[in-house]
Amino acid sequence: MATLWLFLGLTLLFLRGKTEARPVCMRFTVFKKENYSNEITSHRDLSLDFKEKYFKQILDHFNYNSLGNGTYDQRYLITDKYWKKGYGPIFFYTGNEGDISEFARNSGFMVELAAAQGALLIFAEHRYYGKSLPFGKNSFKIPEVGLLTVEQALADYAVMITELKEELGGQTCPVIVFGGSYGGMLSVYMRIRYPNIVAGALAASAPILSTAGLGDPRQFFQDVTADFEKFNPACRNAVQGAFQKLNTLAQQKDYIRIQSAFSLCKTPSSPKDIHQLNGFLRNAFTMMAMLDYPYSTHFMGSMPAFPVKVACEIMLNGTDLMSALRDTVGIVYNNTGELTCYDLYSLYVECADPTGCGLGFNSYAWDYQACTEIEMCFESNNVTDMFPAMPFTEQQREQYCSNRWGVVPRPGWLKTQFWGNDLSTASNIIFSNGDLDPWANGGIRKSLSPSLIAITIPEGAHHLDLRESNPADPESVIVARKKEAEIIAQWVKTARKEPF
Amino acid sequence: MATLWLFLGLTLLFLRGKTEARPVCMRFTVFKKENYSNEITSHRDLSLDFKEKYFKQILDHFNYNSLGNGTYDQRYLITDKYWKKGYGPIFFYTGNEGDISEFARNSGFMVELAAAQGALLIFAEHRYYGKSLPFGKNSFKIPEVGLLTVEQALADYAVMITELKEELGGQTCPVIVFGGSYGGMLSVYMRIRYPNIVAGALAASAPILSTAGLGDPRQFFQDVTADFEKFNPACRNAVQGAFQKLNTLAQQKDYIRIQSAFSLCKTPSSPKDIHQLNGFLRNAFTMMAMLDYPYSTHFMGSMPAFPVKVACEIMLNGTDLMSALRDTVGIVYNNTGELTCYDLYSLYVECADPTGCGLGFNSYAWDYQACTEIEMCFESNNVTDMFPAMPFTEQQREQYCSNRWGVVPRPGWLKTQFWGNDLSTASNIIFSNGDLDPWANGGIRKSLSPSLIAITIPEGAHHLDLRESNPADPESVIVARKKEAEIIAQWVKTARKEPF
Repeated sequence: MATLWLFLGLTLLFLRGKTEARPVCMRFTVFKKENYSNEITSHRDLSLDFKEKYFKQILDHFNYNSLGNGTYDQRYLITDKYWKKGYGPIFFYTGNEGDISEFARNSGFMVELAAAQGALLIFAEHRYYGKSLPFGKNSFKIPEVGLLTVEQALADYAVMITELKEELGGQTCPVIVFGGSYGGMLSVYMRIRYPNIVAGALAASAPILSTAGLGDPRQFFQDVTADFEKFNPACRNAVQGAFQKLNTLAQQKDYIRIQSAFSLCKTPSSPKDIHQLNGFLRNAFTMMAMLDYPYSTHFMGSMPAFPVKVACEIMLNGTDLMSALRDTVGIVYNNTGELTCYDLYSLYVECADPTGCGLGFNSYAWDYQACTEIEMCFESNNVTDMFPAMPFTEQQREQYCSNRWGVVPRPGWLKTQFWGNDLSTASNIIFSNGDLDPWANGGIRKSLSPSLIAITIPEGAHHLDLRESNPADPESVIVARKKEAEIIAQWVKTARKEPF
Repeated sequence: MATLWLFLGLTLLFLRGKTEARPVCMRFTVFKKENYSNEITSHRDLSLDFKEKYFKQILDHFNYNSLGNGTYDQRYLITDKYWKKGYGPIFFYTGNEGDISEFARNSGFMVELAAAQGALLIFAEHRYYGKSLPFGKNSFKIPEVGLLTVEQALADYAVMITELKEELGGQTCPVIVFGGSYGGMLSVYMRIRYPNIVAGALAASAPILSTAGLGDPRQFFQDVTADFEKFNPACRNAVQGAFQKLNTLAQQKDYIRIQSAFSLCKTPSSPKDIHQLNGFLRNAFTMMAMLDYPYSTHFMGSMPAFPVKVACEIMLNGTDLMSALRDTVGIVYNNTGELTCYDLYSLYVECADPTGCGLGFNSYAWDYQACTEIEMCFESNNVTDMFPAMPFTEQQREQYCSNRWGVVPRPGWLKTQFWGNDLSTASNIIFSNGDLDPWANGGIRKSLSPSLIAITIPEGAHHLDLRESNPADPESVIVARKKEAEIIAQWVKTARKEPF
C-alpha cells in the first residue's frame, strides 16, 4: 500500500554504506533540503505522552488446535492524560502496516480530539508489524506467516478493547476507532464486524473498494498522474517524455547511457533491470502524490512541503528530461543528499502491491497480505497515466504469490467477507478522502446514508485529516476535522444512552 | 445441543447386539409404540425432490498456509422444483450439528414456503457433520479437527451462496437463511456477518444468549422441569422422588437394587457409574421436552406424540417410582421395545454439552464445538429443577476439554464475535421460540426493533415452526408460520429494490 518503511530501509542502507566499499559511479545533482519551500515541519514526538505496553494476545483466534495455540505480545501505546476516567470515550487507532509509533506520531488529530473530548487514547499495533511479531524473527517463515490475516488482526483489536475496558474501568465508555489507509479499512471492518464493541469509525483515506478488486485497475496511477498534471500539464508531459527517452534507450540496449542518465550504481544488463528501474522511478511519484502535504513531513520517509510542486519545478527546470527525472526521484530516495548513486534493488523492492511494499520486515508482511486477502492488481499503461506500461494481472499476482509464499490469492474474498460496496446495513462510519490522494477514488466518495458520511478534502493528500493541526493547513482540512469532531461527539453521546 | 444422533447410535447398538452375547439381565416393562396417543406421524421423504450435490469448498478460510491449504467436498441438497428461475428468492438452510438430510426431512415449512414464493431451496451441510468430513475418518484427530469452527462454517456458507448464485443464474435473487437450534444461531450470524449476501434470517429456537454464556446456568433444566410440571405438578414430584430414591440407594451403595430397579445391563460399582446413570436418565427428559410435538416424529430418534404427556402418564401410573422412571426413559431409549436392559455407557455419552452430544462421529464434532466456542455450562441442582444436582462449571469444562481435545475454551468469545445481546445494529431477523422448548429462554424472546422480531409459539416445542404443516398443529404455530411467511415475502420484495 505504501513504501512506509522506505525511511527505515534508507537508514539501514546508509549505515551499511558506511562500512561497505562505495561502488564507482558518477556524481549527480542532489535534491537537497535547502530546496524545500514553505518549511513548516510537523513531527510530533508523542513519546512523552504515551506509555508503551504489551498485551497478551491470542495467537490464533480461529483454530484451537493450530501451531498458534498460545499467545504473543502485542504492542500498544496508551495515554490517559486526557481521559475523564470511566466516563470519557475511548479513541482506538486500528494499527496498520507499520510500527505503531509511526502512526501515533502522525495522527495528532486524535490527540487533539482526545484533549477536547476527554478520551482515553490507544494506538494498537497490527500483528506481524513493528514489535508485534508473533514468532519473532521466524514470523515470516511458512507456515508461521499464515496467522497474518485481516480477520486475526480484527479479532486482536476486539479482544484487546474488551479486556482493556475491563482492566481500566471503562466498561461503559463508548469506543470510536480511527485509522488511515489500510488502518482506515480496518476501522470500517471493526465497525461492521464488531458494532457490539465499536460505536463508530473514522476511516481516513480507506480504499475499501479498490483493494477488494472493485473498480478500475487503471485508477490508481491515473490519479497519481492527475496530481502532477493538475499542478501543470507540462509536468505530466515532461515525466512521460523522460520515461519515453528511457524506453528508447532500453530498446537500443544502451545500458551505459541509462546508467549515466539515472546515476545508477550498477550498469543495467537486462529487460529485468529496466523493469526494476521503471518501478523504482514510478514509485517515487506514488509517494510524492500520496504525501503531498502543505508542510514537510517525516512519515514514510522525509518529504518536503508540497512535494508534487517541488517535483514539477525540478522536472520543468531541468536541462535534460532524464536527469531531471533522476533528480526528481531524489526527493524520495535521497533527501539527505548523501547518496552518490542509486542502488535499484536496495532502494525499491517489487512485490504484490504495485504501489509499493517498502523495505524490511514490514514489507514482508504487507507483501504477504497483498498475496492473500488484499487485492491490488493496479496497472500503469502510458495512456491513462504518464508511466511506462506495467501491467499487473491477477495471473501475474498468482504466479508471484505462489512462488514467494506458497499461497494462491482468493479474488473476491474481501468483497465477500467485508461487504464490498454493499454497505446498506452499516452505520456510523466517516469516510474521509483528499482529492490529492491517489487512493481516494478507491474508497467511498459519496455519503450512503445519514450515518455513512463521506467527507471530501479538496486540498488533502493521504489522510491529512488525521495529522495534527498545522499553520499551513488548508481551510478544507480544518473544516473536515471540525465536522469529524462533531459527528464523533454525537456518536459518543448516542452510545451513552444505549450503552454497550 | 441435542442427542441428535441417538437414533443412529441406537441402530448401531442393535446391530452390534445381534452379533455379541447379550448380557444377563432382568426383563422390564417396555414402553411400546402402541402406547402412542394421537398417532399422526410426520416424516416427509424429500429424497424425491432434492438432488444431493457436493461443493468444492475452501478448507481453511482464515489461513493461507495451514494444513488446510486445499479444498474438501461439502454436501448440499438442492431443488429448483419451485423456483422462478433467476427471479425467485433463494431459501438457504444453514446446516447444523448433523446429517443435512435429517434437517431437510424435518424442515417441511421451507418446502411449503418455497412452493408458495417460487424459491430455490438449498440445504447445506455443516463441515465435520454428515458426509462433509474434510479429512474423512481422520477428521477428528488433532490437529485436523481444528478447522471445525463457527467462523469457518459461516464462511463456507458465504462462499457457497456466492458461487452457486453465479452458477445457477441467480445473481440478483435475494437470499433468506433458515435454521433451527444451532442452525438458527448460524442464520443469525449469517445475517449480521454477511448482510451483503443474506437479506434476512428465520432463526427458529436459536439460543444465541445461553450458548454465549449469557443468562442463568440453571435456566435450561429448570425449563425442562417446567414442561413436566405444567402438565401436572405431581409429575415433577414423581420424577424428583424417583431420583431421590435412586440417590438414597446410591448413598447406601446398594448397587444391586439399583441395577434391578433400572434394568441395567451391568451392575454399577462406583459413584462414577451412578453419575452416568443420572446423566442418562436426565437426558431422556431433555429429549422429551425438546421434542414435545403434537404428533409422533422421527427427528433425533423416534418420539411419540406429546412425549411429555406420555412420560407423565407413565410416571404417575407406575406402582413404583423407580421402575416408572425406568419405563419413562424407555420412550427415548427403547421405543422399539427391543432392548432388554440399558447399557448406560453405550446409550448415553457424557460430553461438554450437558444437554447431550448424541453418539457417533457427529457427537465428536459437537463435543469439540462445545469445548471451544459454544458455551453450555448448564447445571441441574435439584432445587430449581427436578433432577439430581449435577454442576458443570467452567473449570470442569476446561479440564474435560483440555483432556479430551487438547484445547482451552475461551469464555466470552461468542459474545465478542457475534454480539451477544448487543443487537441494536442488526436487522431482518425473526427469532421464533416455543414455550415448551427448554432452549427458548436462552434466545431472544422480545422484539428488539421493527425488523428484529420475536415470535412466540405457546404450544411449540423445539423449532416446531420449521416442520411441515400437520393436522395436529396447534393454532399458534399456524399463526406463527403465516406471520413468518409474510415477513419473509416483504424482505424479498425490499431486497429486490436494493439488489445486492
